[in-house]
Amino acid sequence: MGIQDAIAELQAVLGEALTRSKSELEQHGRSESHFPLTPPDAVVYPRSTQDVAELVRICARHSCPVIGFGAGTSLEAQTQAVQGGVAVNFRDMRRILQINAADMDVTVQPGVTREELNEELRATGLFFPVDPGANASLGGMASTRASGTTAVRYGTMRDNVLALEVVTASGEVIRTGSRARKSSAGYDLTHLFVGAEGTLGLITELTLRLHGQPEAVSSAVCAFDTVPDAVNAVIDAVQIGLPVARIELMDTDSVIAVNAYSNSDLPLKPHLLLEFHGSESAVAEQAETFGELARDHGGLGFDWATRAEDRKALWAMRHNAYYAILQLRPGARAIVTDICVPISALADAIDETRADLAQSGLTGPILGHVGDGNFHAILLIDESDGDEVRRAQEASHRMVQRAFRLGGTCTGEHGIGIGKLGYMEEEHGHTAWTMMGNIKQALDPDNIMNPGKLVPPRN
Amino acid sequence: MGIQDAIAELQAVLGEALTRSKSELEQHGRSESHFPLTPPDAVVYPRSTQDVAELVRICARHSCPVIGFGAGTSLEAQTQAVQGGVAVNFRDMRRILQINAADMDVTVQPGVTREELNEELRATGLFFPVDPGANASLGGMASTRASGTTAVRYGTMRDNVLALEVVTASGEVIRTGSRARKSSAGYDLTHLFVGAEGTLGLITELTLRLHGQPEAVSSAVCAFDTVPDAVNAVIDAVQIGLPVARIELMDTDSVIAVNAYSNSDLPLKPHLLLEFHGSESAVAEQAETFGELARDHGGLGFDWATRAEDRKALWAMRHNAYYAILQLRPGARAIVTDICVPISALADAIDETRADLAQSGLTGPILGHVGDGNFHAILLIDESDGDEVRRAQEASHRMVQRAFRLGGTCTGEHGIGIGKLGYMEEEHGHTAWTMMGNIKQALDPDNIMNPGKLVPPRN
Repeated sequence: MGIQDAIAELQAVLGEALTRSKSELEQHGRSESHFPLTPPDAVVYPRSTQDVAELVRICARHSCPVIGFGAGTSLEAQTQAVQGGVAVNFRDMRRILQINAADMDVTVQPGVTREELNEELRATGLFFPVDPGANASLGGMASTRASGTTAVRYGTMRDNVLALEVVTASGEVIRTGSRARKSSAGYDLTHLFVGAEGTLGLITELTLRLHGQPEAVSSAVCAFDTVPDAVNAVIDAVQIGLPVARIELMDTDSVIAVNAYSNSDLPLKPHLLLEFHGSESAVAEQAETFGELARDHGGLGFDWATRAEDRKALWAMRHNAYYAILQLRPGARAIVTDICVPISALADAIDETRADLAQSGLTGPILGHVGDGNFHAILLIDESDGDEVRRAQEASHRMVQRAFRLGGTCTGEHGIGIGKLGYMEEEHGHTAWTMMGNIKQALDPDNIMNPGKLVPPRN
Repeated sequence: MGIQDAIAELQAVLGEALTRSKSELEQHGRSESHFPLTPPDAVVYPRSTQDVAELVRICARHSCPVIGFGAGTSLEAQTQAVQGGVAVNFRDMRRILQINAADMDVTVQPGVTREELNEELRATGLFFPVDPGANASLGGMASTRASGTTAVRYGTMRDNVLALEVVTASGEVIRTGSRARKSSAGYDLTHLFVGAEGTLGLITELTLRLHGQPEAVSSAVCAFDTVPDAVNAVIDAVQIGLPVARIELMDTDSVIAVNAYSNSDLPLKPHLLLEFHGSESAVAEQAETFGELARDHGGLGFDWATRAEDRKALWAMRHNAYYAILQLRPGARAIVTDICVPISALADAIDETRADLAQSGLTGPILGHVGDGNFHAILLIDESDGDEVRRAQEASHRMVQRAFRLGGTCTGEHGIGIGKLGYMEEEHGHTAWTMMGNIKQALDPDNIMNPGKLVPPRN
């Protein structure tokens, strides 16, 4: 059998950097979300690009699936080994290779996490802004085209990856892009690999765009009487071009959850969490402008967090909201939805979703990167309650249909993995999805790179 | 012969929307730059996406090359019919289909030019910022991944195309992306077509990101004693994150040319041309900050253009600089170079280039979008002087080698066309360029979409 032959050969080359221990296989077959365990046949821990190239060449010879693995924080089971094979864990490729302060870029190995990078950057006056909440690996964040709370100001991984080193499906090493800020030199391979979820190759180095640490930062929470009031304040802010650095929605159920989990005492109303970055005067001006917009929509006054530790606590509360929501019902798992619509449709999308969840008898607190038109309902399920699971799946399905109807996408930032594969054809149309399959076929003819994901099944 | 059969069939379907008049063929085989005439066999003027789909299906059946054509302002002969075939001129697909002011986006047909779009947007408070100088078509700008004077603030076409409608090489119609601001749903087909120079399909609709018209705008010119002084002021501005909207370099030779052409009287020294966008107070703060930086590098004081007509005159002067430089030597043509390097290498790149041109005895005024690390030397040539042409080609070649050595690209914004095809393998490496060829093969197996461009020749 191909996989076993590959593993035997890999073991000879990699020695202790390959494991088949049951606990490690299970760890790599598990998901943060609600998907069933799907372990790989082996896990390898390469230490260099050359290790990766060699292991891919071995796997290619034996048609053995190869699945990249970063911090394991993806939410749609992107890393699960649905056809078995070898998980490539980048834990030991975790070096920051070069900080170019003058050019505001950095080159890292894929296993570096965003928090590790920012820790290392602290003294440089620069930072890497993309913040999906979880302390994800940068290779994983590129592969899922991650974004998060700061995308409204700094963009997503798409906007912040300048160049890549990639090991192709045949085990060759290529470089895409350069450290120049722009180029018109041919097909944009960099942005073909960003978001490809490891189906076209494995990212072994990333050159990322950095940003200057803002001179001043201030954060605030603002309660509103209703979710539409809060959303309309956001829409106004986006439309006047207010450069908020973060603008996040938590509905009342989410507030209940984070209050309990983070020991906070926010009023039991929908909230916006905001952050402003800039000069002292710019931050003050932005905050004042937003204050006026908020008041226009019945905003109930700001609670400011100007001290660094208060801001840290505020965003830790937001980042932990997913775990807080899971604790609303101990033992529950979650179906995490992730639709994104044009901002003009956001109030409708959230309104309809809330009404639908209420009617379906589901607990589904809503959190959103609302400045991008992106939000999540965290649908709590008791996996032993088949009826509840079915109702949650149906509500999730209706959310996606709602996004499509409103001109949006089935995933703003979590990606496709297993959970959204069934929507690819509907979102892109048969011809465009087939085109993705043709690209995959051209770049990975033996279908070894994370097979079973993202593109139409091979005949 | 395939091409003639295709044309006969196209004529039956398109009637007067197809022409073989010699003047029109020559107009479509000409380049703004120094490339020899290469006319197509016919020119067609489709009126709809369905026209485009039908004509591509006809051409596909007869293996007849199909070359998209917008305003004909590309500089590397992207639209020249190097293997004959049919030029598809989008002159009659020139409608602005939908302005979504609330979402700050617009959907247009590919023949709309950037000036037409901004004229139409004037009353909305929004504008489309990408400004390559020429009044290019938006379809062409997407296809070459154009940028220009405002990219330092608003990004390039890559950053401002949200979604596309494309007619594929088999004459099917697909849509890529959506009006949602972000998505993680599969391969980024939008950004595969942006910059593909019509080699993968024809863009028949574009959804573009718009930006709010700034509350206040001010422009300035600032003279410096030397080019390195000017460049170092730019580098400082970029490194402190000053959000200049435009920051352009003209060296002394360029100033001589624009003074003569635009009847201006700038001092005969290197200049930076700047523009600031924002609130009244932000613009004032930015201008003051830049003033300090300029003084640090010997800047000789600002000449402000705060009135709209003065700003218009200033940027018209900059936009006409290419024609002004051509007039330095009436009858001359130009080899227009276009390298882009990391900003920390910009002073070296320009310095070495100036020394090289002086030593080569060439006239080559330098203009640059220096905030992006991108600049052009306009190498004037008398086409009948073989020695001068050779020296200019060699100097252009050395500029590209210099860009590669400094971590940059052979083209910041003009694209590949014919002029840079010979550098693709060196810039990307054999494997990555082959990968581009494999993508082309997968999406255009019969090689009818702008054949002979961008990817390795088929065997």
